Amino acid sequence: MSGSKQSIGIDFGGTSIKSAVVENGAIVARGAIIDPAKHASSLTLIEALFDVVKALRASHPAISGIGIGFPGFVDCKSGVVHSLTNVKGWHEVPMVRMIQERTGLKAAIENDANAMAYAEFLHGAAKGAQNAVCITLGTGVGCGLVLEGKLFRGTRFAAAEIGHTSIDLNGPRGVYGTPGDLEVYVGNKQTAERAARLYNAAGRPRTAAECTPADLSSLASQGDSIAIGLWEQIGTEIGAALVNAVWLLNPDAIVIGGGIAKAGPLVMDPIRRTIRDRVSPLFHEQLKIVPAELGNDAGIIGCAELALES
Amino acid sequence: MSGSKQSIGIDFGGTSIKSAVVENGAIVARGAIIDPAKHASSLTLIEALFDVVKALRASHPAISGIGIGFPGFVDCKSGVVHSLTNVKGWHEVPMVRMIQERTGLKAAIENDANAMAYAEFLHGAAKGAQNAVCITLGTGVGCGLVLEGKLFRGTRFAAAEIGHTSIDLNGPRGVYGTPGDLEVYVGNKQTAERAARLYNAAGRPRTAAECTPADLSSLASQGDSIAIGLWEQIGTEIGAALVNAVWLLNPDAIVIGGGIAKAGPLVMDPIRRTIRDRVSPLFHEQLKIVPAELGNDAGIIGCAELALES
Repeated sequence: MSGSKQSIGIDFGGTSIKSAVVENGAIVARGAIIDPAKHASSLTLIEALFDVVKALRASHPAISGIGIGFPGFVDCKSGVVHSLTNVKGWHEVPMVRMIQERTGLKAAIENDANAMAYAEFLHGAAKGAQNAVCITLGTGVGCGLVLEGKLFRGTRFAAAEIGHTSIDLNGPRGVYGTPGDLEVYVGNKQTAERAARLYNAAGRPRTAAECTPADLSSLASQGDSIAIGLWEQIGTEIGAALVNAVWLLNPDAIVIGGGIAKAGPLVMDPIRRTIRDRVSPLFHEQLKIVPAELGNDAGIIGCAELALES
Repeated sequence: MSGSKQSIGIDFGGTSIKSAVVENGAIVARGAIIDPAKHASSLTLIEALFDVVKALRASHPAISGIGIGFPGFVDCKSGVVHSLTNVKGWHEVPMVRMIQERTGLKAAIENDANAMAYAEFLHGAAKGAQNAVCITLGTGVGCGLVLEGKLFRGTRFAAAEIGHTSIDLNGPRGVYGTPGDLEVYVGNKQTAERAARLYNAAGRPRTAAECTPADLSSLASQGDSIAIGLWEQIGTEIGAALVNAVWLLNPDAIVIGGGIAKAGPLVMDPIRRTIRDRVSPLFHEQLKIVPAELGNDAGIIGCAELALES
């Protein structure tokens, strides 16, 4: 066993916190899942995290680092979690120092979408690419950028917010006041509400709760024209935001993951078509537009790799 | 004289080719200007270029490199000029090899907007920044990106085409089929035509030729509400494209140069306002949005620096 290559990756999700021991980009053991809702304070939650780490180290003594991906703004240089998007009580938490003091191991923290992008670049759909744009479609639109083979984080470690870029300067405003904010069109909740409106208008009422990405994929695969048309529309909108990223960054890989991406060709085809129709050959000839490969484990794997590099 | 720091920068413009000897980011001598229209073939033009280089080396024997910025697609790694935007007869020209063979000096070629961005980063308005977006407003919208202190070129050396990013997915199509292509709104020609239409509609006819950026700046400074309103509109449109670059790249500097930028606060104010209103504090708190400082010499200085680094 080449112990120096084992590390723990932790994917800190708003509804569950998953962890695993990773070696050469593959998961070799999983930790107990933590439900953050069961912890009234960040302190007891952190203790629960350290319990999971302790158990994983007991069975894997050669672990040399721990990486955690957070849904929010983290400073990966100072090792401080500034704030989390849907989790209360996390403000200016010096997480890297806490891990190092408690465990003596190398430690890294990262934005969750960045961690996923890095995993897809090292071991997944963007392997071998030089410049990759990786998006994750879910409640919001997560994104990570790998530029010249390195995770690109921007000045305040906040780059890659493609979900808030605008596709229409006269469109409806998003949470930060951006007109035509992509998430206003293609977030899971917004997609469900759009679908419900379309079905109601067609005299075939469905609630938004009956219009999850899975429902809409299933309806489309049965030939339902409303669901097919909506996927086409969503793919075109996601494609429009990606067109801007392509003109700006001239990437050789775009990786698309998350819930909506499970609609497969229904959404991938209009995304590909939109990009190919709206950029010059120099920009699309060497560009692959592919589904993510690592699924829900991408965040864990990316963080585990970043821990080893820290 | 520290000879090793002197190099020649050449700005290959569509209407004039300017050159100079540069030392520590400053121009110390200028070469004769070449008019490309006077050369029927790229071969005689290249000979004219070598004549200028020869003259500059005669008075500055310590020159150690030559850099040329081209308006088009160049491969700075292989040293080949693929094609130029408004200049015929330049296809797959192995420029770096030709310079090296004829002069024995180090040589570099670069896209002109990239060269300007790099000069502003090293010696101008973006000095000290970590991540800079530099745009040049003219016939088209040029752009160069400096990311993590290095010129970012993308997979095919074609990155930073902010002029073709879309601000409206339902807008008029640009030359590459992109709906809402920024250049359709704010290129010099388009701006003049928009202005002429507005004046004609208001019963105060002006031709497009009477609506250059200089004319419109002068009219606005006299309190002309049509010109003031148009600058406001153009600033908002440029700002909308920059908002997307800010969300994606989280830069700490945006530099704005070129003809339209000479309108000063008339266009800078709406650009700044649009960006500050449409991104979160984390993205604008440390972001400076400033006019270019090096003017028409930026391309020459950037190329001269790139030659020394080659």
